[in-house]
Amino acid sequence: MTTLPPWIVVDQLLQNWLLEDVGRGDMTTAGLFSQEVKGGKAEWSVKETGIIAGLPIGARVFQLLNPKIDFVAIAAEGEKVSSGQVVARLDGAVDGLLMGERVALNLVMRLSGIATMTGKYGAAIADLPAQLVDTRKTTPGMRILEKYATRVGGAINHRMGLDDAVMIKDNHIQAVGGIGAAISRLRDTIPYPLSIEVETGTIAQVREALEWGADIIMLDNMGLEEMGDGVKLIRGTKEGVKIEASGNITLENIRSVAETGVDYISTSAFITRSTWLDLSMNFC
Amino acid sequence: MTTLPPWIVVDQLLQNWLLEDVGRGDMTTAGLFSQEVKGGKAEWSVKETGIIAGLPIGARVFQLLNPKIDFVAIAAEGEKVSSGQVVARLDGAVDGLLMGERVALNLVMRLSGIATMTGKYGAAIADLPAQLVDTRKTTPGMRILEKYATRVGGAINHRMGLDDAVMIKDNHIQAVGGIGAAISRLRDTIPYPLSIEVETGTIAQVREALEWGADIIMLDNMGLEEMGDGVKLIRGTKEGVKIEASGNITLENIRSVAETGVDYISTSAFITRSTWLDLSMNFC
Amino acid sequence: MTTLPPWIVVDQLLQNWLLEDVGRGDMTTAGLFSQEVKGGKAEWSVKETGIIAGLPIGARVFQLLNPKIDFVAIAAEGEKVSSGQVVARLDGAVDGLLMGERVALNLVMRLSGIATMTGKYGAAIADLPAQLVDTRKTTPGMRILEKYATRVGGAINHRMGLDDAVMIKDNHIQAVGGIGAAISRLRDTIPYPLSIEVETGTIAQVREALEWGADIIMLDNMGLEEMGDGVKLIRGTKEGVKIEASGNITLENIRSVAETGVDYISTSAFITRSTWLDLSMNFC
Amino acid sequence: MTTLPPWIVVDQLLQNWLLEDVGRGDMTTAGLFSQEVKGGKAEWSVKETGIIAGLPIGARVFQLLNPKIDFVAIAAEGEKVSSGQVVARLDGAVDGLLMGERVALNLVMRLSGIATMTGKYGAAIADLPAQLVDTRKTTPGMRILEKYATRVGGAINHRMGLDDAVMIKDNHIQAVGGIGAAISRLRDTIPYPLSIEVETGTIAQVREALEWGADIIMLDNMGLEEMGDGVKLIRGTKEGVKIEASGNITLENIRSVAETGVDYISTSAFITRSTWLDLSMNFC
Amino acid sequence: MTTLPPWIVVDQLLQNWLLEDVGRGDMTTAGLFSQEVKGGKAEWSVKETGIIAGLPIGARVFQLLNPKIDFVAIAAEGEKVSSGQVVARLDGAVDGLLMGERVALNLVMRLSGIATMTGKYGAAIADLPAQLVDTRKTTPGMRILEKYATRVGGAINHRMGLDDAVMIKDNHIQAVGGIGAAISRLRDTIPYPLSIEVETGTIAQVREALEWGADIIMLDNMGLEEMGDGVKLIRGTKEGVKIEASGNITLENIRSVAETGVDYISTSAFITRSTWLDLSMNFC
Amino acid sequence: MTTLPPWIVVDQLLQNWLLEDVGRGDMTTAGLFSQEVKGGKAEWSVKETGIIAGLPIGARVFQLLNPKIDFVAIAAEGEKVSSGQVVARLDGAVDGLLMGERVALNLVMRLSGIATMTGKYGAAIADLPAQLVDTRKTTPGMRILEKYATRVGGAINHRMGLDDAVMIKDNHIQAVGGIGAAISRLRDTIPYPLSIEVETGTIAQVREALEWGADIIMLDNMGLEEMGDGVKLIRGTKEGVKIEASGNITLENIRSVAETGVDYISTSAFITRSTWLDLSMNFC
Repeated sequence: MTTLPPWIVVDQLLQNWLLEDVGRGDMTTAGLFSQEVKGGKAEWSVKETGIIAGLPIGARVFQLLNPKIDFVAIAAEGEKVSSGQVVARLDGAVDGLLMGERVALNLVMRLSGIATMTGKYGAAIADLPAQLVDTRKTTPGMRILEKYATRVGGAINHRMGLDDAVMIKDNHIQAVGGIGAAISRLRDTIPYPLSIEVETGTIAQVREALEWGADIIMLDNMGLEEMGDGVKLIRGTKEGVKIEASGNITLENIRSVAETGVDYISTSAFITRSTWLDLSMNFC
Repeated sequence: MTTLPPWIVVDQLLQNWLLEDVGRGDMTTAGLFSQEVKGGKAEWSVKETGIIAGLPIGARVFQLLNPKIDFVAIAAEGEKVSSGQVVARLDGAVDGLLMGERVALNLVMRLSGIATMTGKYGAAIADLPAQLVDTRKTTPGMRILEKYATRVGGAINHRMGLDDAVMIKDNHIQAVGGIGAAISRLRDTIPYPLSIEVETGTIAQVREALEWGADIIMLDNMGLEEMGDGVKLIRGTKEGVKIEASGNITLENIRSVAETGVDYISTSAFITRSTWLDLSMNFC
Repeated sequence: MTTLPPWIVVDQLLQNWLLEDVGRGDMTTAGLFSQEVKGGKAEWSVKETGIIAGLPIGARVFQLLNPKIDFVAIAAEGEKVSSGQVVARLDGAVDGLLMGERVALNLVMRLSGIATMTGKYGAAIADLPAQLVDTRKTTPGMRILEKYATRVGGAINHRMGLDDAVMIKDNHIQAVGGIGAAISRLRDTIPYPLSIEVETGTIAQVREALEWGADIIMLDNMGLEEMGDGVKLIRGTKEGVKIEASGNITLENIRSVAETGVDYISTSAFITRSTWLDLSMNFC
Repeated sequence: MTTLPPWIVVDQLLQNWLLEDVGRGDMTTAGLFSQEVKGGKAEWSVKETGIIAGLPIGARVFQLLNPKIDFVAIAAEGEKVSSGQVVARLDGAVDGLLMGERVALNLVMRLSGIATMTGKYGAAIADLPAQLVDTRKTTPGMRILEKYATRVGGAINHRMGLDDAVMIKDNHIQAVGGIGAAISRLRDTIPYPLSIEVETGTIAQVREALEWGADIIMLDNMGLEEMGDGVKLIRGTKEGVKIEASGNITLENIRSVAETGVDYISTSAFITRSTWLDLSMNFC
Repeated sequence: MTTLPPWIVVDQLLQNWLLEDVGRGDMTTAGLFSQEVKGGKAEWSVKETGIIAGLPIGARVFQLLNPKIDFVAIAAEGEKVSSGQVVARLDGAVDGLLMGERVALNLVMRLSGIATMTGKYGAAIADLPAQLVDTRKTTPGMRILEKYATRVGGAINHRMGLDDAVMIKDNHIQAVGGIGAAISRLRDTIPYPLSIEVETGTIAQVREALEWGADIIMLDNMGLEEMGDGVKLIRGTKEGVKIEASGNITLENIRSVAETGVDYISTSAFITRSTWLDLSMNFC
Repeated sequence: MTTLPPWIVVDQLLQNWLLEDVGRGDMTTAGLFSQEVKGGKAEWSVKETGIIAGLPIGARVFQLLNPKIDFVAIAAEGEKVSSGQVVARLDGAVDGLLMGERVALNLVMRLSGIATMTGKYGAAIADLPAQLVDTRKTTPGMRILEKYATRVGGAINHRMGLDDAVMIKDNHIQAVGGIGAAISRLRDTIPYPLSIEVETGTIAQVREALEWGADIIMLDNMGLEEMGDGVKLIRGTKEGVKIEASGNITLENIRSVAETGVDYISTSAFITRSTWLDLSMNFC
């Protein structure tokens, strides 16, 4: 099962998100129920087919509002769910249930939408060794959770931010004056365990990246044939170099890309092309 | 033109979002450029047709990193843009441009995607008096900007949170024991300028809401005919009551819904069903 | 009973307020008691007649310092209390009781002073339909609690901030060029459930506000006769428009103001003219 | 002139207080002025006689919203002002002026009310050597500014919090078993420059405090005669001990208290018994 | 026993420090243990002789990560420990133990190093009345804990910051034009319980400080003979003035300094010259 | 030159550290100078031989207090400085200089002490290919700056936290049941660019780590001979594996360790065994 990010990191996000919605108070609920109301029972059900992700985070939202609310996930993270399926049961004070409902659902709907889309890409290459990876195109503030959702959906994370891997892009190469110059300058300055990835757009660049010892070579926006040539060149030259394909990956072409023999295929589609999985909360 | 939310509110979000991506530093850029590098020039171009939203917010991201970076928006907020169109020109220290690129683009891509989808819904009813409104289904942490984007795209905002309007839903009605009980209890407790909206699913409920003086009546998930009956009942009974249609609004059915004579049509589709508008930044 | 604002909002205020007083530690208490000391018992008593407000918030202060401290409110929120009356009993670690005492008492004394003053204004019009409302003249940082105290004292809240209702004042009218221009421009831009209130100082302005569909009309600083005329004009013209009297409301004139038939009478006096209700904590 | 507290401390308070009022945006102003509007001119005038305090802090509020707003204080801090007097002129973007108005005025009205009340107490003993001091009864969150206002009004600050002086009260004495035990235990544990003050209610306690070397002796709630005896005892026994009178100090009795020869007279009346000084902002 | 600083102050530091290390998650632990793992047992042992300080704070680090982790300190704060000695036993979820290990150990190693060095200085003057005090040379962010460690090691704290005592240094004297001018100006402006300390470098300055009523006189960087003269002058002139020696205090000269009869000897050596006490955590 | 960490990350630390020292205000300076005082001139000089680090950060401290203060570094980061050497000149408002002095100096003294110690280790192996690296034993809250200081002193950073590289330690191996099990489980779960380092204590473990594809192998606490064997085994088996020596590295043994042919030598001594470089600020 996919490990959740640590609560010590997530809780402050959830706190802020609750405050965003609650503002100065839930005027409807507070106006109706002047006391903490006796327990209510509710359930969450999905309204379309997909992969569920984020239920433990939804549960945490309610806990921050009222630790006595009981949220029991019925579906497992990553489980395929279909319309009408109940995925969680809630039991506790009515005001807390109503105040947390929207934030908790928004999160789980968004994360499940991502997992669902990731699952579709994964299914297309399930029998091939290439692995799906995400990118840094994530909704600001949600990265740690959105990247959790891509893992739930079957992908592996690429770097989490600007500081846990080095990626030399066109601009860097241009500003410094070449791949070799860039790599050699970086080797002496970055935290030494960091991998150095180089974005390449031509076979010549692949060759230069190889020569200077790039740890990961990205074949960016190449045609399938050129990509195949790149893979062969790298495999034939040096062991242990990881190959990542990127750029305009679609459900249509991902299988062909995987068949070129790359190790990783990265796409932001899980995040930028997915819609939310519809869920609703109903009182019983 | 649509007014931006105040910087005093937005800046702290942008600050957090930059820190999310930057982490302990942009290792690539910092490793390559040990000094603040002389100015670079870059431009932002769109890669698909849509409505642009968020450029002033993108500009602000760079300002927070380095106030000397010059970001000139070429396109106006809400402008229809097409593939290849340059929408902004940037000029300033290379390290700041590279460090802010991803956060700024992620924001503008997301917001433009929302505006684009909103625009499609708006176009379908442009010649009718009904107005498009959004909901509280927004990405946690992004609401103030996502609701800005729906305005740019042509919608009007519904309430911004749980505290700036009252909405009596099924659960509230059930827990309190009726629409009348709910409204009368609320009138004495809420900040008095707040509107009271009641969610109704039947003509009987519409009648009860009218009788007890609801300011806004939502016709939720009704068929077109029932909705038309609801509109007629309300119009014939009392002046000044606002009517909102909600529930399963699609590009296909929105026109028919508008033709029932409702004042507002609310949908979360701009947020939950939109994809990101593709943009990229290129150094010149 | 009056509903408390949600802890998720209040707790961060209390936390900051405790830190304001505690600084780097309670040097007296810490210097005397090197270990967490065995339980102490204390009680809170009032030293003058008034209306008590804020006891559950005082209790929360101690809870944040030490969840094992037991704070039992003896008086109900809004109860009339008189000198010598015990309103709360505390039981728990001596160091927590001493560290939290001042912050908790300061809060309850301030809030009770507000409720007491509100009660005086309310008593003057208790048999009339007009309702008392507060304003945005509140102590910075304390609004959510001060507005809670006015509710406890018998008032209804006006808007909580700049974002939950629209109020068109002289300056706005002047800058835009008229009430009509202001209202029509606002209808298309604000969250649609927001009420639009217009401040009027003359019957001509009342007429203009009516004509353009203001939801609430404030009769500001009018003489009683003019105010009476305003009320008649509004009632005779359109149903459902709320009327608020404001400006120089005193205990002496409030009854006459109420008798003009306005719906609401707003004053900042609860906040700006009230003193603190004296309370003290004594160890038993 | 009284020194302001450092901006690095105050700015974060002002920021929070602006956000409290602004919430998700000033809907009126934002709805009317979609662009940053050309400069407006306004002035602040007082509406009752008093002592002005806090104008530089009011100025700072606007600066945080928009650094280009020009706020020129016409009155000096601590100046006696009378009804109709203009105390500040403002010039700058209309939206910033409107958005900051309430928070800035609330602050200056509250602080000026405190300074005014402090001035009244000070006037009663102006020709006597005793000095007026404040207490820790301050509005939560506002202490650093409220204590600034008492200085502006002519008082000296007592300790700012629980950490910059030691005060041994009844409860401490009781819990530890005597003044001597308390002082000797504290001498070895507190930061050594801290003064030790002992609250005494009887001449016997004064004697014990003297014997054990208290730096400051508070004569709490004593009658005038007993207070006079306490002063004589202390003066006759040891040089350098500071004497503070406290408890039920009023404008009526403060002069008699001062005449007993105490060094300091402390009262919370500036904070707990003062009302706000009325000010308003008008566009020119 | 030395009192710990209050958790309400310390917890937010610990929280930030955990986040500094954890970043976006403990990738090793999270990658290995996808579920909360069954309990692990570990112990902390010291690897060199010293004085232990900070174990309750180490315990708190784990509590913030996971309240169910059991951390039992075996050694008392301030206890002399030697290589191989077990000072704490831990029992709880393996992932929490691994995630908190480094932060907790870093704290306790640093604090124990400080206590150890303080103990060495203290031992040199243990039979003399002079007391050891620390300074404001502390690691930014760690002051409240580092000053706790010097107390554990046997010192007394000097002022905690710029606000709990006044210290007039050369620069102040020079800028204002003399010790007398400085003291008299300060007496009227500072919170009245604050002590005034004057840094003196010559007997003439000592005389001036005495004359103007300094509460504490620091003999800064004086030779032993001059220091002795200073002590005599002060003792012969006025009772109750505290004398502090400062400047280049070493383990070699501290005894001679103490023998001059000063009350306090201050040095930053505990902080600036100490190394960390080596500790490690081992799973059993 | 070594790149500084980004201000967007550092500024919030500096802000907190200033607040830690300033508390409720610099009572001495505020008490003496009631207005912002005319410019003062000061210089920073070192009082012992070492390597200077952190001057731009010291400059930033003053900027946050008062942007008009001019801080000119005379020495370059990493420069060898000797007693009496002036390293910075300051010019600006006296109150800002006095308020920021201690925090700024504390930082630069600490960082320079670290750089100085790092420089000593580096000198011992300057002619050998092995590179010096730091560890996660850093003062809580200061890591980003302390790791900057080790770079200034000539080291390369190891991972910055728990999230930018994977390190499999004894405990992990034990809990999972072997190096192979650990590595294979991690490959599928961690962000894919992350390196996997394995701590080994025996040649058998080195062999297992090699077999399972560790990217970095740490030879921990091995004798020199065993370490040499480990290096040979790794070099003879697989290209591209990085070798790190760790455990009890001293100035005495580091050269021998480097001569075994390892790539990296890690030690916490720069942080845990360094003292502060003495600096002082003097007004001119």
